[in-house]
Amino acid sequence: MALFTFDISVSLDGFVAGPDPSMEDPLGKGGEQLHDWVLATKAWRESHGREGGEDNADSEIAARSIADAGATVMGRKMFSGGEGPWEGDPNSDAWWGDEPPFHHPVFVLTHHAREPVAKDGGTTFTFVTDGIESAFEQARAAAGDKNVALGGGASVAQQYLVAGLLDELRLHVVPVLLGGGTRLFENHVGSDLPRLEQAAAIESPAVTHLTYRVVK
Amino acid sequence: MALFTFDISVSLDGFVAGPDPSMEDPLGKGGEQLHDWVLATKAWRESHGREGGEDNADSEIAARSIADAGATVMGRKMFSGGEGPWEGDPNSDAWWGDEPPFHHPVFVLTHHAREPVAKDGGTTFTFVTDGIESAFEQARAAAGDKNVALGGGASVAQQYLVAGLLDELRLHVVPVLLGGGTRLFENHVGSDLPRLEQAAAIESPAVTHLTYRVVK
Repeated sequence: MALFTFDISVSLDGFVAGPDPSMEDPLGKGGEQLHDWVLATKAWRESHGREGGEDNADSEIAARSIADAGATVMGRKMFSGGEGPWEGDPNSDAWWGDEPPFHHPVFVLTHHAREPVAKDGGTTFTFVTDGIESAFEQARAAAGDKNVALGGGASVAQQYLVAGLLDELRLHVVPVLLGGGTRLFENHVGSDLPRLEQAAAIESPAVTHLTYRVVK
Repeated sequence: MALFTFDISVSLDGFVAGPDPSMEDPLGKGGEQLHDWVLATKAWRESHGREGGEDNADSEIAARSIADAGATVMGRKMFSGGEGPWEGDPNSDAWWGDEPPFHHPVFVLTHHAREPVAKDGGTTFTFVTDGIESAFEQARAAAGDKNVALGGGASVAQQYLVAGLLDELRLHVVPVLLGGGTRLFENHVGSDLPRLEQAAAIESPAVTHLTYRVVK
Protein backbone atom coordinates (compact mmCIF):
# COMPACT_ATOMS: atom_id res chain seq x y z
CA MET A 1 0.00 0.00 0.00
CA ALA A 2 1.34 3.41 -0.89
CA LEU A 3 1.99 5.56 2.18
CA PHE A 4 2.33 9.22 3.06
CA THR A 5 5.62 9.27 4.94
CA PHE A 6 7.70 11.82 6.82
CA ASP A 7 11.42 11.19 7.32
CA ILE A 8 13.06 13.68 9.64
CA SER A 9 16.33 13.94 11.55
CA VAL A 10 15.79 15.21 15.06
CA SER A 11 18.06 15.97 18.01
CA LEU A 12 17.54 14.04 21.23
CA ASP A 13 15.99 17.17 22.72
CA GLY A 14 13.46 17.36 19.91
CA PHE A 15 14.79 20.00 17.52
CA VAL A 16 14.92 19.72 13.71
CA ALA A 17 16.98 22.91 13.36
CA GLY A 18 19.17 24.81 15.81
CA PRO A 19 18.72 28.35 17.14
CA ASP A 20 19.04 31.47 14.95
CA PRO A 21 18.46 30.06 11.45
CA SER A 22 19.28 32.42 8.58
CA MET A 23 19.65 32.34 4.80
CA GLU A 24 23.38 31.65 5.29
CA ASP A 25 22.75 29.07 7.99
CA PRO A 26 19.28 27.64 7.28
CA LEU A 27 19.67 24.82 9.81
CA GLY A 28 20.56 27.17 12.67
CA LYS A 29 23.42 26.85 15.12
CA GLY A 30 24.56 23.26 15.35
CA GLY A 31 21.73 22.08 13.11
CA GLU A 32 24.03 20.63 10.46
CA GLN A 33 24.94 17.87 12.92
CA LEU A 34 21.45 16.46 12.42
CA HIS A 35 22.23 15.56 8.83
CA ASP A 36 25.80 14.30 9.08
CA TRP A 37 24.59 10.70 9.18
CA VAL A 38 22.66 10.93 5.90
CA LEU A 39 25.18 13.10 4.08
CA ALA A 40 27.76 10.35 4.68
CA THR A 41 25.66 7.67 2.97
CA LYS A 42 26.11 6.27 -0.52
CA ALA A 43 22.34 6.54 -1.08
CA TRP A 44 22.17 10.25 -0.31
CA ARG A 45 25.26 11.00 -2.39
CA GLU A 46 23.86 9.08 -5.38
CA SER A 47 20.58 11.00 -5.25
CA HIS A 48 22.63 14.20 -5.29
CA GLY A 49 24.74 13.06 -8.27
CA ARG A 50 27.83 12.38 -6.20
CA GLU A 51 30.05 9.33 -5.95
CA GLY A 52 31.30 7.47 -2.90
CA GLY A 53 29.77 7.45 0.54
CA GLU A 54 29.23 4.74 3.10
CA ASP A 55 27.22 1.67 2.16
CA ASN A 56 25.90 0.78 5.62
CA ALA A 57 22.64 0.39 7.57
CA ASP A 58 22.05 4.15 7.43
CA SER A 59 22.48 4.10 3.65
CA GLU A 60 20.01 1.22 3.29
CA ILE A 61 17.43 3.16 5.27
CA ALA A 62 18.00 6.31 3.20
CA ALA A 63 17.95 4.30 -0.04
CA ARG A 64 14.60 2.75 0.77
CA SER A 65 12.97 6.11 1.53
CA ILE A 66 14.37 7.59 -1.68
CA ALA A 67 13.37 4.62 -3.86
CA ASP A 68 9.86 4.31 -2.41
CA ALA A 69 8.87 7.95 -2.96
CA GLY A 70 7.11 8.97 -6.17
CA ALA A 71 6.32 12.56 -5.18
CA THR A 72 7.21 15.03 -2.44
CA VAL A 73 5.23 17.70 -0.58
CA MET A 74 7.09 20.53 1.14
CA GLY A 75 6.51 23.94 2.66
CA ARG A 76 7.62 27.22 1.16
CA LYS A 77 10.24 27.68 3.89
CA MET A 78 11.88 24.41 3.00
CA PHE A 79 11.78 25.27 -0.70
CA SER A 80 13.43 28.68 -0.54
CA GLY A 81 13.70 29.83 3.08
CA GLY A 82 11.69 32.90 2.09
CA GLU A 83 8.17 34.18 2.51
CA GLY A 84 5.81 36.67 0.86
CA PRO A 85 5.59 37.36 -2.89
CA TRP A 86 8.06 35.42 -5.05
CA GLU A 87 9.42 38.64 -6.61
CA GLY A 88 10.91 39.57 -3.24
CA ASP A 89 12.41 36.15 -2.51
CA PRO A 90 16.17 36.16 -3.15
CA ASN A 91 16.18 32.34 -3.16
CA SER A 92 13.08 31.82 -5.31
CA ASP A 93 14.97 29.26 -7.43
CA ALA A 94 15.46 27.15 -4.24
CA TRP A 95 18.55 25.51 -2.82
CA TRP A 96 19.21 22.71 -5.25
CA GLY A 97 20.49 24.21 -8.51
CA ASP A 98 19.69 22.83 -11.98
CA GLU A 99 19.29 19.20 -10.96
CA PRO A 100 17.51 18.86 -7.61
CA PRO A 101 17.83 15.52 -5.80
CA PHE A 102 14.12 14.62 -5.89
CA HIS A 103 13.83 13.22 -9.45
CA HIS A 104 10.02 13.28 -9.19
CA PRO A 105 7.17 15.81 -8.89
CA VAL A 106 7.41 18.13 -5.89
CA PHE A 107 4.43 20.11 -4.57
CA VAL A 108 5.30 23.30 -2.70
CA LEU A 109 2.78 24.81 -0.26
CA THR A 110 2.64 28.58 -0.62
CA HIS A 111 0.24 31.50 -0.29
CA HIS A 112 1.62 32.99 -3.54
CA ALA A 113 0.66 31.52 -6.89
CA ARG A 114 3.40 30.71 -9.39
CA GLU A 115 3.79 28.77 -12.63
CA PRO A 116 5.32 25.28 -12.32
CA VAL A 117 9.07 24.97 -12.76
CA ALA A 118 10.67 21.94 -14.50
CA LYS A 119 14.25 21.10 -13.60
CA ASP A 120 16.76 18.59 -14.95
CA GLY A 121 16.64 15.00 -13.79
CA GLY A 122 12.88 14.64 -13.46
CA THR A 123 12.14 17.13 -10.70
CA THR A 124 9.18 19.45 -11.28
CA PHE A 125 8.02 22.03 -8.74
CA THR A 126 4.28 22.72 -8.64
CA PHE A 127 3.09 25.52 -6.38
CA VAL A 128 -0.09 24.81 -4.44
CA THR A 129 -2.07 27.67 -2.92
CA ASP A 130 -5.25 25.88 -1.85
CA GLY A 131 -4.02 24.08 1.25
CA ILE A 132 -2.41 20.97 2.62
CA GLU A 133 -5.13 18.54 1.56
CA SER A 134 -4.93 19.71 -2.04
CA ALA A 135 -1.14 19.44 -2.07
CA PHE A 136 -1.35 15.92 -0.70
CA GLU A 137 -4.03 14.88 -3.22
CA GLN A 138 -2.00 16.23 -6.14
CA ALA A 139 1.11 14.45 -4.86
CA ARG A 140 -0.87 11.25 -4.28
CA ALA A 141 -2.05 11.30 -7.91
CA ALA A 142 1.44 12.06 -9.21
CA ALA A 143 3.10 9.31 -7.16
CA GLY A 144 1.07 6.48 -8.70
CA ASP A 145 1.63 3.36 -6.60
CA LYS A 146 4.65 4.84 -4.86
CA ASN A 147 4.77 6.68 -1.54
CA VAL A 148 4.32 10.39 -1.10
CA ALA A 149 7.16 11.85 0.97
CA LEU A 150 6.68 14.89 3.16
CA GLY A 151 9.80 17.00 2.94
CA GLY A 152 9.10 19.39 5.81
CA GLY A 153 9.51 21.63 7.58
CA ALA A 154 8.25 21.14 11.09
CA SER A 155 5.25 23.46 10.82
CA VAL A 156 3.92 21.76 7.70
CA ALA A 157 4.57 18.35 9.24
CA GLN A 158 2.58 19.28 12.34
CA GLN A 159 -0.32 20.42 10.16
CA TYR A 160 -0.36 17.10 8.29
CA LEU A 161 0.00 15.10 11.50
CA VAL A 162 -2.83 16.91 13.30
CA ALA A 163 -5.00 16.58 10.17
CA GLY A 164 -4.50 12.81 10.34
CA LEU A 165 -3.15 12.63 6.80
CA LEU A 166 0.30 11.15 7.50
CA ASP A 167 0.67 7.36 7.52
CA GLU A 168 4.19 6.92 8.79
CA LEU A 169 6.57 8.99 10.87
CA ARG A 170 10.24 8.04 10.62
CA LEU A 171 12.39 9.81 13.17
CA HIS A 172 16.14 9.62 12.84
CA VAL A 173 17.22 10.48 16.38
CA VAL A 174 20.69 12.02 16.50
CA PRO A 175 22.55 11.80 19.85
CA VAL A 176 23.04 15.53 20.22
CA LEU A 177 21.44 18.23 22.38
CA LEU A 178 20.84 21.48 20.46
CA GLY A 179 19.30 23.34 23.42
CA GLY A 180 16.94 25.34 21.22
CA GLY A 181 15.71 25.96 17.71
CA THR A 182 12.75 24.60 15.77
CA ARG A 183 10.85 21.86 17.57
CA LEU A 184 9.52 18.88 15.64
CA PHE A 185 6.53 18.78 18.00
CA GLU A 186 5.12 22.02 19.31
CA ASN A 187 2.33 22.15 21.89
CA HIS A 188 -1.01 21.09 20.47
CA VAL A 189 -3.11 21.12 23.61
CA GLY A 190 -6.74 20.48 22.76
CA SER A 191 -6.03 19.10 19.30
CA ASP A 192 -7.35 15.70 18.40
CA LEU A 193 -3.94 14.08 17.94
CA PRO A 194 -3.67 10.77 16.10
CA ARG A 195 -2.86 7.49 17.81
CA LEU A 196 0.47 5.91 16.89
CA GLU A 197 1.83 2.38 16.71
CA GLN A 198 5.50 1.67 17.15
CA ALA A 199 6.65 -0.11 13.98
CA ALA A 200 10.44 -0.39 14.23
CA ALA A 201 13.53 0.79 16.08
CA ILE A 202 16.83 0.30 14.29
CA GLU A 203 20.08 1.29 15.96
CA SER A 204 23.00 2.26 13.78
CA PRO A 205 26.33 3.52 15.10
CA ALA A 206 25.37 7.12 14.29
CA VAL A 207 21.65 7.41 14.96
CA THR A 208 18.52 5.51 16.01
CA HIS A 209 15.83 5.11 13.39
CA LEU A 210 12.33 5.02 14.90
CA THR A 211 9.28 4.28 12.77
CA TYR A 212 5.70 4.93 13.89
CA ARG A 213 2.46 4.22 12.04
CA VAL A 214 -0.52 6.49 12.40
CA VAL A 215 -3.56 4.42 13.39
CA LYS A 216 -6.37 5.17 10.95
CA MET B 1 31.91 1.83 37.53
CA ALA B 2 29.04 3.29 39.51
CA LEU B 3 26.96 5.71 37.45
CA PHE B 4 24.55 8.56 38.00
CA THR B 5 21.58 7.51 35.88
CA PHE B 6 18.23 8.96 34.90
CA ASP B 7 15.47 6.65 33.74
CA ILE B 8 12.45 8.48 32.37
CA SER B 9 9.39 7.60 30.33
CA VAL B 10 8.69 10.19 27.66
CA SER B 11 6.05 10.62 24.99
CA LEU B 12 7.13 10.70 21.37
CA ASP B 13 6.51 14.46 21.38
CA GLY B 14 8.85 14.93 24.34
CA PHE B 15 6.58 15.23 27.38
CA VAL B 16 7.09 13.50 30.73
CA ALA B 17 3.67 14.58 32.02
CA GLY B 18 0.51 15.72 30.25
CA PRO B 19 -1.24 19.09 30.43
CA ASP B 20 -2.95 20.38 33.61
CA PRO B 21 -1.26 18.32 36.34
CA SER B 22 -2.91 18.52 39.75
CA MET B 23 -2.71 16.79 43.13
CA GLU B 24 -5.46 14.43 41.99
CA ASP B 25 -3.85 13.90 38.61
CA PRO B 26 -0.09 14.49 39.12
CA LEU B 27 0.82 13.14 35.68
CA GLY B 28 -1.54 15.50 33.85
CA LYS B 29 -4.03 14.62 31.14
CA GLY B 30 -3.03 11.41 29.41
CA GLY B 31 0.22 11.24 31.36
CA GLU B 32 -0.54 7.88 32.96
CA GLN B 33 -0.08 6.29 29.52
CA LEU B 34 3.65 6.97 29.86
CA HIS B 35 3.94 4.50 32.71
CA ASP B 36 1.64 1.69 31.57
CA TRP B 37 4.61 -0.26 30.22
CA VAL B 38 6.49 -0.31 33.54
CA LEU B 39 3.44 -0.79 35.75
CA ALA B 40 2.75 -4.00 33.84
CA THR B 41 6.17 -5.49 34.62
CA LYS B 42 6.98 -8.12 37.24
CA ALA B 43 10.02 -6.05 38.30
CA TRP B 44 8.02 -2.92 39.05
CA ARG B 45 5.31 -4.85 40.87
CA GLU B 46 7.88 -6.66 43.03
CA SER B 47 9.53 -3.38 44.06
CA HIS B 48 6.07 -2.16 45.07
CA GLY B 49 5.31 -5.30 47.09
CA ARG B 50 2.88 -6.72 44.56
CA GLU B 51 2.70 -10.11 42.88
CA GLY B 52 2.33 -10.99 39.22
CA GLY B 53 3.20 -8.85 36.28
CA GLU B 54 4.83 -9.59 32.96
CA ASP B 55 8.29 -11.11 32.89
CA ASN B 56 9.46 -9.72 29.55
CA ALA B 57 12.13 -7.46 28.01
CA ASP B 58 10.56 -4.40 29.65
CA SER B 59 10.68 -6.12 33.03
CA GLU B 60 14.35 -7.03 32.57
CA ILE B 61 15.16 -3.42 31.82
CA ALA B 62 13.21 -2.17 34.84
CA ALA B 63 14.74 -4.88 37.05
CA ARG B 64 18.28 -3.88 36.13
CA SER B 65 17.68 -0.20 36.91
CA ILE B 66 16.11 -1.10 40.24
CA ALA B 67 18.83 -3.58 41.23
CA ASP B 68 21.70 -1.32 40.20
CA ALA B 69 20.58 1.71 42.22
CA GLY B 70 21.86 2.21 45.77
CA ALA B 71 20.42 5.68 46.33
CA THR B 72 17.98 8.07 44.65
CA VAL B 73 17.92 11.86 44.21
CA MET B 74 14.61 13.59 43.50
CA GLY B 75 13.04 17.02 43.48
CA ARG B 76 10.48 18.24 45.99
CA LYS B 77 7.74 18.19 43.35
CA MET B 78 8.30 14.52 42.70
CA PHE B 79 8.34 13.80 46.42
CA SER B 80 5.09 15.48 47.39
CA GLY B 81 3.80 17.56 44.50
CA GLY B 82 3.88 20.56 46.81
CA GLU B 83 6.03 23.63 47.34
CA GLY B 84 6.79 26.12 50.09
CA PRO B 85 7.04 25.32 53.81
CA TRP B 86 6.32 21.71 54.75
CA GLU B 87 3.62 22.73 57.25
CA GLY B 88 1.49 23.90 54.36
CA ASP B 89 2.04 20.82 52.18
CA PRO B 90 -1.00 18.51 52.32
CA ASN B 91 1.10 15.67 50.86
CA SER B 92 4.20 16.17 53.00
CA ASP B 93 4.31 12.43 53.73
CA ALA B 94 4.70 11.81 49.97
CA TRP B 95 2.87 9.43 47.63
CA TRP B 96 4.17 6.07 48.73
CA GLY B 97 2.70 5.24 52.14
CA ASP B 98 4.52 3.31 54.87
CA GLU B 99 6.74 1.22 52.59
CA PRO B 100 7.99 3.24 49.61
CA PRO B 101 9.35 1.29 46.63
CA PHE B 102 12.92 2.61 46.83
CA HIS B 103 14.36 0.39 49.59
CA HIS B 104 17.44 2.62 49.85
CA PRO B 105 18.37 6.20 50.88
CA VAL B 106 16.52 8.94 48.98
CA PHE B 107 17.72 12.55 48.88
CA VAL B 108 15.02 15.16 48.30
CA LEU B 109 15.98 18.60 46.96
CA THR B 110 14.06 21.33 48.74
CA HIS B 111 14.38 24.93 49.88
CA HIS B 112 12.80 24.03 53.22
CA ALA B 113 14.82 22.18 55.86
CA ARG B 114 13.29 19.12 57.49
CA GLU B 115 14.44 16.22 59.68
CA PRO B 116 15.08 12.91 57.88
CA VAL B 117 12.20 10.44 57.68
CA ALA B 118 12.76 6.66 57.92
CA LYS B 119 10.16 4.40 56.36
CA ASP B 120 9.65 0.65 56.33
CA GLY B 121 11.58 -1.50 53.88
CA GLY B 122 14.86 0.42 53.92
CA THR B 123 13.75 3.75 52.42
CA THR B 124 14.98 6.87 54.21
CA PHE B 125 14.20 10.38 53.02
CA THR B 126 16.90 12.99 53.64
CA PHE B 127 16.06 16.61 52.79
CA VAL B 128 18.83 18.57 51.12
CA THR B 129 18.71 22.36 51.09
CA ASP B 130 22.19 23.21 49.80
CA GLY B 131 21.81 22.39 46.12
CA ILE B 132 22.04 19.70 43.48
CA GLU B 133 25.76 19.00 43.87
CA SER B 134 25.38 18.38 47.59
CA ALA B 135 22.40 16.08 47.03
CA PHE B 136 24.36 14.11 44.46
CA GLU B 137 27.43 13.84 46.69
CA GLN B 138 25.36 12.61 49.63
CA ALA B 139 23.62 10.08 47.40
CA ARG B 140 26.95 9.02 45.90
CA ALA B 141 28.33 8.31 49.39
CA ALA B 142 25.19 6.45 50.42
CA ALA B 143 25.09 4.29 47.28
CA GLY B 144 28.52 2.73 47.86
CA ASP B 145 29.51 0.90 44.68
CA LYS B 146 25.99 1.00 43.28
CA ASN B 147 24.48 3.56 40.93
CA VAL B 148 22.76 6.74 42.00
CA ALA B 149 19.37 7.05 40.31
CA LEU B 150 17.82 10.40 39.54
CA GLY B 151 14.10 10.15 40.17
CA GLY B 152 13.02 13.42 38.55
CA GLY B 153 11.23 15.54 37.74
CA ALA B 154 12.12 17.21 34.50
CA SER B 155 13.36 20.49 36.00
CA VAL B 156 15.78 18.76 38.38
CA ALA B 157 16.93 16.46 35.58
CA GLN B 158 17.68 19.43 33.34
CA GLN B 159 19.71 21.04 36.11
CA TYR B 160 21.80 17.89 36.56
CA LEU B 161 22.20 17.44 32.81
CA VAL B 162 23.33 21.03 32.20
CA ALA B 163 25.69 20.79 35.19
CA GLY B 164 27.33 17.77 33.53
CA LEU B 165 26.73 15.54 36.56
CA LEU B 166 24.63 12.81 34.93
CA ASP B 167 26.40 9.80 33.40
CA GLU B 168 23.59 8.03 31.63
CA LEU B 169 20.24 9.06 30.23
CA ARG B 170 17.75 6.23 29.65
CA LEU B 171 14.71 7.33 27.74
CA HIS B 172 11.75 4.99 27.50
CA VAL B 173 9.95 6.40 24.47
CA VAL B 174 6.23 5.68 24.52
CA PRO B 175 4.41 5.77 21.15
CA VAL B 176 1.90 8.40 22.17
CA LEU B 177 1.47 12.12 21.45
CA LEU B 178 0.41 14.11 24.52
CA GLY B 179 0.29 17.46 22.72
CA GLY B 180 1.42 19.42 25.77
CA GLY B 181 2.52 19.21 29.38
CA THR B 182 5.94 19.09 31.01
CA ARG B 183 8.79 18.79 28.53
CA LEU B 184 11.76 16.58 29.31
CA PHE B 185 13.98 19.07 27.47
CA GLU B 186 13.21 22.74 27.70
CA ASN B 187 15.13 25.37 25.75
CA HIS B 188 18.66 25.87 27.03
CA VAL B 189 20.01 28.26 24.42
CA GLY B 190 23.44 29.47 25.41
CA SER B 191 24.05 26.72 27.96
CA ASP B 192 27.12 24.58 27.61
CA LEU B 193 25.26 21.33 27.01
CA PRO B 194 27.08 18.01 27.38
CA ARG B 195 27.99 15.80 24.47
CA LEU B 196 26.23 12.45 24.29
CA GLU B 197 27.08 9.02 22.93
CA GLN B 198 24.39 6.63 21.82
CA ALA B 199 24.81 3.46 23.89
CA ALA B 200 21.81 1.26 23.09
CA ALA B 201 18.39 1.13 21.48
CA ILE B 202 16.14 -1.74 22.52
CA GLU B 203 12.71 -2.16 20.98
CA SER B 204 10.02 -3.87 22.99
CA PRO B 205 6.42 -4.27 21.86
CA ALA B 206 5.33 -1.39 24.09
CA VAL B 207 8.16 1.14 24.03
CA THR B 208 11.66 1.86 22.74
CA HIS B 209 14.44 2.04 25.31
CA LEU B 210 17.18 4.49 24.32
CA THR B 211 20.38 4.81 26.36
CA TYR B 212 22.84 7.70 26.01
CA ARG B 213 26.12 8.23 27.86
CA VAL B 214 27.28 11.70 28.75
CA VAL B 215 30.80 12.23 27.42
CA LYS B 216 33.03 13.38 30.30
